Amino acid sequence: MKLSKTLWQTHKETPKDAEIVSHQLLLRAGLLHKTSAGLFTYLPFAMKSMSKIKNIIREEMEKIDATEISLSLITPAEIWQRSGRWQKMGPEMLRFQDRTERDLCFSPTNEEAVTDVFQKQVKSYKQLPLCLYQMNTKFRDEIRPRFGLMRAKEFLMKDAYSFHSDQQCLNEYYQKMYQAYQNIFQRIGLQFMIVKADAGAMGSAESQTHEFQVLAQSGEDSLLYTEDGSYASNTERAEGQRANVDFRKSENSLQKVATENLSTIEEVAEFLKVRPEQCLKSLVYQVVKKGKLTSYLILLLGDDELNEVKLKNLTGADEIYPASEQDLAKAQLVAGSIGPVNLACEMKVIFDQQIEMDAHYVVGANEKNFHFTDFRPSRDLAQKPWIVDVRCARSADLATNGQPLLEARGIEVGHIFQLGDQYTKSMAVDVLDQNGKRQYPLMGCYGIGVSRTMAAAIEQCHDANGIIWPKAIAPFDVYLAAIVKTDEFKKVAEDVYHLLVQSHYSVLFDDRQLGPGPMFKDADLLGLPIRVTVGERDYQQTQKLEIKLRHNSEVIHCRQEELIATLDQLWKTIP
Amino acid sequence: MKLSKTLWQTHKETPKDAEIVSHQLLLRAGLLHKTSAGLFTYLPFAMKSMSKIKNIIREEMEKIDATEISLSLITPAEIWQRSGRWQKMGPEMLRFQDRTERDLCFSPTNEEAVTDVFQKQVKSYKQLPLCLYQMNTKFRDEIRPRFGLMRAKEFLMKDAYSFHSDQQCLNEYYQKMYQAYQNIFQRIGLQFMIVKADAGAMGSAESQTHEFQVLAQSGEDSLLYTEDGSYASNTERAEGQRANVDFRKSENSLQKVATENLSTIEEVAEFLKVRPEQCLKSLVYQVVKKGKLTSYLILLLGDDELNEVKLKNLTGADEIYPASEQDLAKAQLVAGSIGPVNLACEMKVIFDQQIEMDAHYVVGANEKNFHFTDFRPSRDLAQKPWIVDVRCARSADLATNGQPLLEARGIEVGHIFQLGDQYTKSMAVDVLDQNGKRQYPLMGCYGIGVSRTMAAAIEQCHDANGIIWPKAIAPFDVYLAAIVKTDEFKKVAEDVYHLLVQSHYSVLFDDRQLGPGPMFKDADLLGLPIRVTVGERDYQQTQKLEIKLRHNSEVIHCRQEELIATLDQLWKTIP
Repeated sequence: MKLSKTLWQTHKETPKDAEIVSHQLLLRAGLLHKTSAGLFTYLPFAMKSMSKIKNIIREEMEKIDATEISLSLITPAEIWQRSGRWQKMGPEMLRFQDRTERDLCFSPTNEEAVTDVFQKQVKSYKQLPLCLYQMNTKFRDEIRPRFGLMRAKEFLMKDAYSFHSDQQCLNEYYQKMYQAYQNIFQRIGLQFMIVKADAGAMGSAESQTHEFQVLAQSGEDSLLYTEDGSYASNTERAEGQRANVDFRKSENSLQKVATENLSTIEEVAEFLKVRPEQCLKSLVYQVVKKGKLTSYLILLLGDDELNEVKLKNLTGADEIYPASEQDLAKAQLVAGSIGPVNLACEMKVIFDQQIEMDAHYVVGANEKNFHFTDFRPSRDLAQKPWIVDVRCARSADLATNGQPLLEARGIEVGHIFQLGDQYTKSMAVDVLDQNGKRQYPLMGCYGIGVSRTMAAAIEQCHDANGIIWPKAIAPFDVYLAAIVKTDEFKKVAEDVYHLLVQSHYSVLFDDRQLGPGPMFKDADLLGLPIRVTVGERDYQQTQKLEIKLRHNSEVIHCRQEELIATLDQLWKTIP
Repeated sequence: MKLSKTLWQTHKETPKDAEIVSHQLLLRAGLLHKTSAGLFTYLPFAMKSMSKIKNIIREEMEKIDATEISLSLITPAEIWQRSGRWQKMGPEMLRFQDRTERDLCFSPTNEEAVTDVFQKQVKSYKQLPLCLYQMNTKFRDEIRPRFGLMRAKEFLMKDAYSFHSDQQCLNEYYQKMYQAYQNIFQRIGLQFMIVKADAGAMGSAESQTHEFQVLAQSGEDSLLYTEDGSYASNTERAEGQRANVDFRKSENSLQKVATENLSTIEEVAEFLKVRPEQCLKSLVYQVVKKGKLTSYLILLLGDDELNEVKLKNLTGADEIYPASEQDLAKAQLVAGSIGPVNLACEMKVIFDQQIEMDAHYVVGANEKNFHFTDFRPSRDLAQKPWIVDVRCARSADLATNGQPLLEARGIEVGHIFQLGDQYTKSMAVDVLDQNGKRQYPLMGCYGIGVSRTMAAAIEQCHDANGIIWPKAIAPFDVYLAAIVKTDEFKKVAEDVYHLLVQSHYSVLFDDRQLGPGPMFKDADLLGLPIRVTVGERDYQQTQKLEIKLRHNSEVIHCRQEELIATLDQLWKTIP
């Protein structure tokens, strides 16, 4: 493609609201145009990259017999009401009415709509397993859209939904999808991690779910993994075992001590000359489940943090939140001195499983300015507590396989999930099984953020000068820079262009007649894998073209007739 | 593709709300699923056909250097306010607010959004001409969506926008686009007509505009054309010359006659023994322009009809409507006896140019139950009227080239239009010209209804048994029907499938183990160009496969090793 025939404009200024690199570079490199907050136009070269990502996804989906459909973007309230999600979905779901006052939404996801299609088009177990997928625009009414394509309101997503007669079939297909996702991100050329994710309220005990995380410093997600790759998990659901905790053993009995004006664990520990993990942290949470509120007292080792996701899943809650000062006052609890002994009010008590029940700890005495020393849970509790994993795992913990956990940051680009019969059951969608009996098919759902993947690639692959596209998704393979003035050398550049066009390389021909300074700057910013320069002065002297690789700045010179063979050699070395 | 691996279900019932053939067949043949009124899901085989249509469009757009982008589907009120269209667009534009109470709409078209992109990305005339296009989902809030994909709320559209320094450049590019559209519909394989269209209020005197109409009985548009193809126009803007009117010449003076209880032209003509075209029809219209109302009296030959589009364009009105009974009473006019003589109120008078001003006519006398005979316009009018073309042309008229006009029905699938500087000017978007002066670029816009084209193809190409796809956009080339029971012949069918898969034909393999009756019925309904049958009994006796062409029901038998060569011969004969 000749630059003179298309739309491309780089920008020097970094827009103020562009906080992360991908957002900055997408705008500066002329790939993206901001229409409004969270609403973007994909410019020609972004279209090329997206199209390559889409093709890779399509090919891998077809390999596992997933079939492409396209659900309407706008869906009526009725189909969401069938599953009960019209009420449950948060304000991110953009709801509105049409001119006949019919309730509609711009679909943020499509479990209901695809189940509705399934109901009408599938009658028998013989038509199973079946996997339908689509790649279309989704909308999420972000209250504060930011990070460019990472948290845009409008985004391109691939969503797939599979239907099965039994759990074994779902498990087998889930494995195929897992492999397909691995292939997709490997082919795109990104470093990524597959982590166990949180199944949340949607999942049942046997629901498998994994996230595909592109590794990048700016990633919103925290991940924990072991070096040998045998364990990887999103931190929000990771399990870790504390290593080397110095538990205090003693025969002293429970003893109240004054701790005036000391409220944090650190202050109390220092005053009483114990280590923070020899204290217990006491937290009070309100748990709402089906409209009913229960108070929980949660105890953790003093330097651990509560994992709210775990607490929510453990209690099966619809909502959880820390108790307010008023809540505490009502329960006759004193912030800074809360503890499990002498509770004035009935509440459920959870001990994190990292707490050694026979060790001695400092805990709040439920009396202003007083703590207990030598609290031994196995001895001093009136009731047997619920002992579960409710803390945040962190690096330096040991994984379940005994190896130390390491931390990484990731951008979630894919998510696969076993839904079970949640939607088929709530929407009463069944098929006839082998015995002519009605059964609810089991479902899986599988998403990839297509536009987000492009942004994640830029987060992972860039330097101070601009983007460094992974070759599989670069808008073009080659940037042909023509630094020529005379007609004779304009013809040489045209010849090289035609040579490349007729080869297997896609080429962007910079025929804008700029000087080498601005042209090379633009080329680096756009970040195509290879730059080929026809420089009039050099060519006159040496009869050679210059080849420069974007990812390692390697420079090679070759004659025109060697160009394609040289590129073929170099191409293999490019990530 | 094997049917056992995908989603396909035909339906026997014709849905009640499906009024036209394409809607019925799209649903019955398992191509489309109705999510809600006007909202559809494209099922796998519709995706295949749409993808072929999109590829043809893309290839032709690239040939004329149009560059693909993708504008956000949702656009903010602000960019519509810049052109003044936020107010002007009708209720078909779906407007809503996001959670921050920001006004947004689901874009029905994108002149403003693309001009906004242009403003940010283009600085100089050197970057012109430029053409940007996209293929994405549009939304039109139809109050009564019907006719399936013809008048759906959500639809897929290709819209292109070009920018130019001067009218000559716009004209040249317009011609290229005209040719590209011709190529597209020829390649898709449809019979179509290119007609001059109405430029409406958006156009200036020099604005060229054409519609691409697929010919079909069910078409919503009426078209007039001459047999040699030298003239073709949408009826709403067609010009026709009346042929063989028997104008009455006389020296009689104006004479009032009683016409008690006679009000229609036919009744009056019969009573006075003249032909309807020897009477003049008098119509009163209210014309609203920039908030100001003017009454018009329009005279037509008695058997002609007023063309409201022409009247609206001629008067430059924002709105026109026939005078109500109250309006007439106020102007002291009597319905059934209106005429141009003795008008009590001042009103503008239009004579259609088909009226011979020296002939004699019967007209209303502006007095209940009275008409004038022998009204001669050139003699009996107090004021000189405005003589213009304001009638509906119709078949049997003569075209401007003297040939008789023929009528056809069409489905508008494409529209190309010269916008001029309307948007660049109203949105204050300029570039620097050769002399460093600011200038407003001229624009063209060019649409194709992608989903509508698929439906139009079905309207044009079907029979009582189902769809007959034009080969260029058929979901697959070949329907492989396996009527086999034993493993031996299942293997033969598999062999034929692999033979086809490895050839240049795309193939749908019906491996559902149905009998020939339901299988052939489904095959005809789906309407792929070629059906190849592996019939166990026939094959055993003759070692031959059966080939059947969908469009002419021709049947050929051949051996497996001759299959591809035979198909190659037949393929050329298929439309």
